[in-house]
Amino acid sequence: MTTDPSQLQLTADGRLKHFLTTEGLSKALLTEILDTADSFISTQERAVKKVPLLRGKTVVNLFFENSTRTRSTFELAATRLSADILNLDIQRSATAKGETLMDTLWNLEAMYSDMFVVRHADSGAAHFIAEQVTPNVAIINAGDGRHAHPTQAMLDMLTIRRHKQQIEGQIVAIVGDILHSRVARSQIHALLALGAAEVRVVGPATLLPKDIESLGAKAYYDLNLALRDCDVVIMLRLQKERMQNALLPSESEFFKLYGLTTDKLALAKPDAIVMHPGPINRGVEIESAVADGPQSVILNQVSYGIAVRMAVMAMAMSGQQASQQEALHSTEAAE
Amino acid sequence: MTTDPSQLQLTADGRLKHFLTTEGLSKALLTEILDTADSFISTQERAVKKVPLLRGKTVVNLFFENSTRTRSTFELAATRLSADILNLDIQRSATAKGETLMDTLWNLEAMYSDMFVVRHADSGAAHFIAEQVTPNVAIINAGDGRHAHPTQAMLDMLTIRRHKQQIEGQIVAIVGDILHSRVARSQIHALLALGAAEVRVVGPATLLPKDIESLGAKAYYDLNLALRDCDVVIMLRLQKERMQNALLPSESEFFKLYGLTTDKLALAKPDAIVMHPGPINRGVEIESAVADGPQSVILNQVSYGIAVRMAVMAMAMSGQQASQQEALHSTEAAE
Amino acid sequence: MTTDPSQLQLTADGRLKHFLTTEGLSKALLTEILDTADSFISTQERAVKKVPLLRGKTVVNLFFENSTRTRSTFELAATRLSADILNLDIQRSATAKGETLMDTLWNLEAMYSDMFVVRHADSGAAHFIAEQVTPNVAIINAGDGRHAHPTQAMLDMLTIRRHKQQIEGQIVAIVGDILHSRVARSQIHALLALGAAEVRVVGPATLLPKDIESLGAKAYYDLNLALRDCDVVIMLRLQKERMQNALLPSESEFFKLYGLTTDKLALAKPDAIVMHPGPINRGVEIESAVADGPQSVILNQVSYGIAVRMAVMAMAMSGQQASQQEALHSTEAAE
Repeated sequence: MTTDPSQLQLTADGRLKHFLTTEGLSKALLTEILDTADSFISTQERAVKKVPLLRGKTVVNLFFENSTRTRSTFELAATRLSADILNLDIQRSATAKGETLMDTLWNLEAMYSDMFVVRHADSGAAHFIAEQVTPNVAIINAGDGRHAHPTQAMLDMLTIRRHKQQIEGQIVAIVGDILHSRVARSQIHALLALGAAEVRVVGPATLLPKDIESLGAKAYYDLNLALRDCDVVIMLRLQKERMQNALLPSESEFFKLYGLTTDKLALAKPDAIVMHPGPINRGVEIESAVADGPQSVILNQVSYGIAVRMAVMAMAMSGQQASQQEALHSTEAAE
Repeated sequence: MTTDPSQLQLTADGRLKHFLTTEGLSKALLTEILDTADSFISTQERAVKKVPLLRGKTVVNLFFENSTRTRSTFELAATRLSADILNLDIQRSATAKGETLMDTLWNLEAMYSDMFVVRHADSGAAHFIAEQVTPNVAIINAGDGRHAHPTQAMLDMLTIRRHKQQIEGQIVAIVGDILHSRVARSQIHALLALGAAEVRVVGPATLLPKDIESLGAKAYYDLNLALRDCDVVIMLRLQKERMQNALLPSESEFFKLYGLTTDKLALAKPDAIVMHPGPINRGVEIESAVADGPQSVILNQVSYGIAVRMAVMAMAMSGQQASQQEALHSTEAAE
Repeated sequence: MTTDPSQLQLTADGRLKHFLTTEGLSKALLTEILDTADSFISTQERAVKKVPLLRGKTVVNLFFENSTRTRSTFELAATRLSADILNLDIQRSATAKGETLMDTLWNLEAMYSDMFVVRHADSGAAHFIAEQVTPNVAIINAGDGRHAHPTQAMLDMLTIRRHKQQIEGQIVAIVGDILHSRVARSQIHALLALGAAEVRVVGPATLLPKDIESLGAKAYYDLNLALRDCDVVIMLRLQKERMQNALLPSESEFFKLYGLTTDKLALAKPDAIVMHPGPINRGVEIESAVADGPQSVILNQVSYGIAVRMAVMAMAMSGQQASQQEALHSTEAAE
């Protein structure tokens, strides 16, 4: 009954109609996202930052898990596409009055909503909604459990492409709490599809899932070894709020072994770039001298994040509409 | 001192300038609301769902009683009329700092607000504001105590008209907690004004107010009897949050006697439609097989709800402005 | 290292690029703000209240201290300039996840924000942000600690000018809790720069700071004496939430000595106007007969407040952009 997400998110002719995961997407499609995002960086540098691509469309922010930062970036992206936005405080909504989640979603669909931006603590939530609940609403995954965070991964790809010219051939290290990171999974899929030479995942044994190498990454327990010859160093946020106890000795112990310092960064290539999805914990994952230093592109990631979200929203809306038009025509032809 | 609400909400030449209640409104005016709403259903089915009728107007959502669902539908309606919306969290506002409610409203009026959408736990609150506090702001009643919920009633009328062609001649049963229902009162007034053949109110004696027949409805204690020959069955939500104890034996007992099941629905006309204002309590007021079945028009109600709210907002704003222009001219003429 | 705020908020050629304080601003610039605000009063009285001056700009409401009233007026002002607004609930944001405040602000800047409206419990917060954190974002001070509340002061100036024709030559009394009032400080600077004949500050010794006369105001402990020959009486709000204990005997005692009544108001000039920044505490600072009486212009203040905020936002945005263009050109010329 469950469809492969890479299929579910595409129209019959291979265009995006949802954006659920980077897994299974072709290099061509991922590149189209990056190219579209590039064009939106230019529009945001103009005096009037808006384009009318989603004018008159209704985008609903469905954040089951609170994240002011991510919600704000989606809200700004939708605004700059001229969409109308409904921020739904799901904790105070009808679901709280005993209505089922599916009824809530069907109601929102009946209000002529065009797109749901979904963040949920359960892996697979966005996929489930796109497949089982409201397949005619474009679903954008803004993070589901430990599974995926595809817009974050794509803004990271855009950052690498803009600062290293291309993704092909790069050696990339992803450092920290891989176990709880939906970002890392989405990054690995995208990096390999886009031709990265090598993806290294680095962390203590307790935070490195056994099966991670099956995705095509290489596991390292020693940061110093992992940094050798790296072009790109991606530091992850310690997901303290999602961490069960005893997985981590202490923050200062973690920093000593896996925190990025100027000294350690010197082991990577001299022109290596340093990334972090934010919000950063200074002195835990990363030293301030590195976070604010010349090799850091952390704030550039934030800027590119809006452009990437604009890109996937515009592409998914366009694909979703084409798909609905087609369904309408084939129904009419059959009658 | 208190004006008849049906007069208060109309201009000198009989146009809507507030929307407080369906009581006392003429068949012609109620029909005008439905016709206007019909036109907004079409605009919402277009690629760009917006019309510029309220461009540059400020609509303030004043929800003294929390209701995410209803607030969202008004917010979407205002957005699709191109209004600017201010959502006021009244619990955190200046009223909390010791300011009187009237001062808060006068302040909002002084900010050049054009319309207040008011929801309040006290019967008569919207009426009081329209008459005593801010008569030059168009007031839309989004539910006041047990008194009225006129936009809900009008979306129900639109649903009946679109699915049964006309309201004239229909036999309508309203089932459940009539006592606490502002919706039922507003429905009875609108149904009778629009020519329904018979309105039946159905529920246990504890939830059927003694005076309900004075409105023109017929009381039934037996659902099976009440459903006979019905064209339209409207199930109400059990207002558990507003219910004092001991009015209800138990939810399962209630469902056994008054819950709508496939078997019971078979007692109504074969083409009867089933409605519910939502959010629904599955297995309490209604069986899932009925709620999701072919005779249910529950999700259509939600869609029509946006169109009806657009209609009364556009009509009231237009009437309010005409009324202010006229007052201005008569003042000038008198000088 | 710290720049004089009056310099910091101006471009090289003396135009506004932030709005942090009225202190140190020239009569010409203050008058330009009032003239610009006057023009926005007219636009708000039109059927469509909006002008496209900030179209495509992103304004972020950064309220570290909650104030629904003030936030609403800034939100309406930005909306009527056609800006896009992001309301950041700073208590729930990334700062709460351990991110530093500076990282939060840098992130917002990286999202191509154009303007921050800042309210903060610490004196100097807006100044610090404008100087040290995000100098290329236009900062509007919406109240910082006990220091300044310059938009409130300017709306008071506009009120005086519109109701007394000019500020030059007026005798103004500011009455109540001067000690905790950022409003009073901003008013004194603006009044003296704009040519008021005399500014009297009136209150109990415990609420009159010793150094207030150094600003150019005259201290009075007796309200009856202070009101003699006054053209303008400004009542301040008792900042109960900011007051340490023992500064105030009791509210009724305060009202007896410093509350404005019809009798006391008769001591001022017969055409004196009465002002209050709101929200008012009826029967504490002011008697209802005065607040609602013919000499009160309290609700006019609210109306002018939107226009003044539109004026400083439009002027600061324009100056900020000119300043950035210039910096760009001089960098290019140097290369």
